[in-house]
Amino acid sequence: VDLGYNLKEKIDMAAGRRKSELVLKNASIVNVFTQEILKGDIALAGDIIVGIGNYEGEKEIDLKGGFAAPGFIDGHMHLESTMVLPSELSAVLLARGTTTVVADPHEIVNVCGIDGIRFIMDQAKKSLLDIFIMLPSCVPATPHDSPGARFDETDMEKLVCEDRVLGLGEFMDFKGVVEGRSDVLKKLKLFRGGKIDGHAPGLSGKALNAYAVAGIRTEHEAGSVEEMLEKLRLGFYILIREGSAAKDLKTLVNGVNSGNMRRCVFCTDDRHLDDILAEGHIDNNIRMAVEAGIDPAAAIAMATLNTAECYGLNDRGAIAPGYLADIVVLEDLKNFKINMVFKSGKITVGNKGWTAGSGRDADVPEWLRNTVRLGSISKDMLDMEMCGPEANIITLVPGSLATVKAVRKVSTENGLFICKEKSDPVKLAVMDRHRASGNIGLGLLDGFGIRCGAIASTISHDSHNLIVTGDNDTDMLLAAEELGSCGGGITICSSGKVLKTLPLPVAGLMSLKPFMEVEQDLIQMLAIARSLGIPYNIEPFMTLSFLALTVIPEIRLTEKGLFDVIQDNYINYCRT
Amino acid sequence: VDLGYNLKEKIDMAAGRRKSELVLKNASIVNVFTQEILKGDIALAGDIIVGIGNYEGEKEIDLKGGFAAPGFIDGHMHLESTMVLPSELSAVLLARGTTTVVADPHEIVNVCGIDGIRFIMDQAKKSLLDIFIMLPSCVPATPHDSPGARFDETDMEKLVCEDRVLGLGEFMDFKGVVEGRSDVLKKLKLFRGGKIDGHAPGLSGKALNAYAVAGIRTEHEAGSVEEMLEKLRLGFYILIREGSAAKDLKTLVNGVNSGNMRRCVFCTDDRHLDDILAEGHIDNNIRMAVEAGIDPAAAIAMATLNTAECYGLNDRGAIAPGYLADIVVLEDLKNFKINMVFKSGKITVGNKGWTAGSGRDADVPEWLRNTVRLGSISKDMLDMEMCGPEANIITLVPGSLATVKAVRKVSTENGLFICKEKSDPVKLAVMDRHRASGNIGLGLLDGFGIRCGAIASTISHDSHNLIVTGDNDTDMLLAAEELGSCGGGITICSSGKVLKTLPLPVAGLMSLKPFMEVEQDLIQMLAIARSLGIPYNIEPFMTLSFLALTVIPEIRLTEKGLFDVIQDNYINYCRT
Repeated sequence: VDLGYNLKEKIDMAAGRRKSELVLKNASIVNVFTQEILKGDIALAGDIIVGIGNYEGEKEIDLKGGFAAPGFIDGHMHLESTMVLPSELSAVLLARGTTTVVADPHEIVNVCGIDGIRFIMDQAKKSLLDIFIMLPSCVPATPHDSPGARFDETDMEKLVCEDRVLGLGEFMDFKGVVEGRSDVLKKLKLFRGGKIDGHAPGLSGKALNAYAVAGIRTEHEAGSVEEMLEKLRLGFYILIREGSAAKDLKTLVNGVNSGNMRRCVFCTDDRHLDDILAEGHIDNNIRMAVEAGIDPAAAIAMATLNTAECYGLNDRGAIAPGYLADIVVLEDLKNFKINMVFKSGKITVGNKGWTAGSGRDADVPEWLRNTVRLGSISKDMLDMEMCGPEANIITLVPGSLATVKAVRKVSTENGLFICKEKSDPVKLAVMDRHRASGNIGLGLLDGFGIRCGAIASTISHDSHNLIVTGDNDTDMLLAAEELGSCGGGITICSSGKVLKTLPLPVAGLMSLKPFMEVEQDLIQMLAIARSLGIPYNIEPFMTLSFLALTVIPEIRLTEKGLFDVIQDNYINYCRT
Repeated sequence: VDLGYNLKEKIDMAAGRRKSELVLKNASIVNVFTQEILKGDIALAGDIIVGIGNYEGEKEIDLKGGFAAPGFIDGHMHLESTMVLPSELSAVLLARGTTTVVADPHEIVNVCGIDGIRFIMDQAKKSLLDIFIMLPSCVPATPHDSPGARFDETDMEKLVCEDRVLGLGEFMDFKGVVEGRSDVLKKLKLFRGGKIDGHAPGLSGKALNAYAVAGIRTEHEAGSVEEMLEKLRLGFYILIREGSAAKDLKTLVNGVNSGNMRRCVFCTDDRHLDDILAEGHIDNNIRMAVEAGIDPAAAIAMATLNTAECYGLNDRGAIAPGYLADIVVLEDLKNFKINMVFKSGKITVGNKGWTAGSGRDADVPEWLRNTVRLGSISKDMLDMEMCGPEANIITLVPGSLATVKAVRKVSTENGLFICKEKSDPVKLAVMDRHRASGNIGLGLLDGFGIRCGAIASTISHDSHNLIVTGDNDTDMLLAAEELGSCGGGITICSSGKVLKTLPLPVAGLMSLKPFMEVEQDLIQMLAIARSLGIPYNIEPFMTLSFLALTVIPEIRLTEKGLFDVIQDNYINYCRT
């Protein structure tokens, strides 16, 4: 219950003429304005902090010298990648000290269009976690993609003035920007002078200048210190990402120094629920940064004040009078064990100790639960005729979303590719699941390691068609059919049997279950995946889900076929 | 002429597909994002920078390794204090590298109300210099003041959505804020979540927390490192001021470190034209900071990016693609000699080499030139009856706006104060000049040093009544009459003669003359003032103009009498 003190009452409490509603006594406060740790009490009233110093409260909690940091802010994430509903995720992230996220809901929009954003906004209203929205800029991600819905500047105009909307989401179609394509310019102009997120892996030199001139001011795809520094110098905030598959932090943290720290921000981008529960969310970025030698107060500023500045969230990101009472109480500044979390003055205690309310099923409209339309599929659709002995192979890079285009000989039988030798790649297929067109793209994948089975998912960025990989057609077909019948999700099949399925009926992306159950399912499925040979340096589900994303080099697969990102065109999987 | 390239054309230039309009070749660019000095070309098109790197232009200027810094931003200034019209001042400040100012036009508003702001806005439109407005929050400055006009929340509402309006100006009535007075709260609520400037010298502890809770986020009155650090920690941006009378920089610069630098900003507040022309404007702050040991790139960031962030000016404060082409070309990073200045891509060359256009007189409406209404004044109005041997004396503190309340014996004759001994203070009088009421306040002043004469001014913050000081009534009366007849200004009289007058007919605050003439007048008048005994550590006109300002400790004089700022009430000048 927000007691809703008025400004006069808050001033009275700050001035000490009246007891504050709640005082956190004896805190070691992380001051992000000055990068100091300072002793003091924190006085709260309603949803804000009213005073720092020596205060008395109607209620008091003695922190006994415990560290108090501002609530963490994730500068860029896709809520849908956690596979639970936002109202459910709220509990998970708050327990990890994240009190605000800047979300780009482009997954659900690729499936459902503007209605998907409205659903996320409704969910956001029910969440204690503050969820802000960057409007998806690239649905479809590029002209080469075939999502379930489109979202253009006409749709954006309908939402641009909504409270939670901060700006325009990651402009993944960086080629369109650099070329100055007219449909791209229309979107950019709508947000001119505002917040526009970038996504331009490897972009450099004059092309990067062109991307900056367009008004794009953040980047979360920098892959090296050199790339990071070039982008910082041109005015981009660098969002240092530690996701489930994309793990940039250990590299980029080497580029942070006292001169550029204010322009460095943390994000997770795409991070699975199990990783959040096991390792953490933004607290994990902080912990890793401190381990790598960043001063704890600076690391916390990168997770709070810097993000708030980057997105113009002037009411948060610091423990100071007038700021939102978003406070994380930490046991120390090394392990960053979280003892308490306050969001807008409300207490949320400890990891996994807080669960979301009931009534989740009822909140999800029927049309959102019925989005997988595969059409009829048959085994022969998976046949890969080889026009020559060599193939273009999508090769994974562990710890990165990037792939490499390898060229080598593969096994064939009756002119068709067959996964026979240990050195052979496996098949990868992307099937249209939005319009039941029967469209299917086929390719070869190396480094995934699966044998005697198949894994399929309706999470496949950004169009979220059905993606399936395996060493045999029987299991691949079975996996696809399983997802077609359960409304989407992730499944693993082996030797003609479905081993386990995680249904994700909400747009084929999110579960209706409580996060604890989803976590257990994911842990079991990960163990099953490992048992089929997927190596420990590959996160199978996240990795699979990015293989259709045509904006990350070098080579991808869509329902139209194999796509060379560098050449910006479709290519054959076999070479003559 | 802004060639008005569209976004597509700018992207084409950035991408190198088309020559840029203008390229500054071989610059040593001060990168405020990373605090580095980096070699490169700066490509411009229209009013913005399109690229940094290796560029070709339709026109090219070889900087031959010269340093290029972003245009400087003054975070807080009163344009009127320069005594020239904003359209005229534009030339002066641009030549000093200042390309943007955040102005609080509360001087003219104290005289003319909302029409005064509209006049400043009209002037701003004609200026190449970018002038942003913080709406005056305290007109009258406190309930104790008697200005010519009032400006309340109803007036503010009419202007709050204007393009140039950034927020609410310095809330000098800090007592009203800390008490939570209802008229104060109305104003604060109108700007809630926005930019609100502070002004709270010496405010500390719980009272300072109350001031912060009210949403006030800047402070330019910190007088010591200790005060600065307390305010930084509570979330205030610290504006480090170097004005004509208030010189805080040498002290405060000792409090700047790499942890808090981003929250430190430069301003001038009140700086006279002659000081700007002789020593500089924000360039002077930078030069002094570097002399005191601040890294040049950091000092430049404090003058540019930090100020832009503080006031939410996202389009400026850095040399980067997409940013306004506000560029200062410097000979070195020690003396900061300015060789060239670009404002919005337009070149402005060198100090004093650029004068404003003609037609200034025509631009100033008649009502604005006729604001001094003194009524009839006579010598006996200056009589100071002494009820006892001791007096409360306003004592100046060199280099500061603060005054000290001294108590000691003074000379009398027939029961009236007389300035006879060398140790005697001089008389100070403040006369209503708005309503011809004949109201007059009398006090005694020590440290000003004037003998055989009087100085009067219609600049007397913030009510801008007529203030006059001197050692004899004849010259004081003459000085007041002189200003009454010329529409306001500054005058010096001695031995019954007017030695020199600088007429300031625009609201009694600003001249209609070109800045060069005003400067010459000021230099001559300063020499005359010195010849009357005013010591070299006192800037006579600025010092005089602050003696009526009831918000700066310890003791002031208004047309109602002697005011004790600490006790917050009027007191007698004599003690029984």
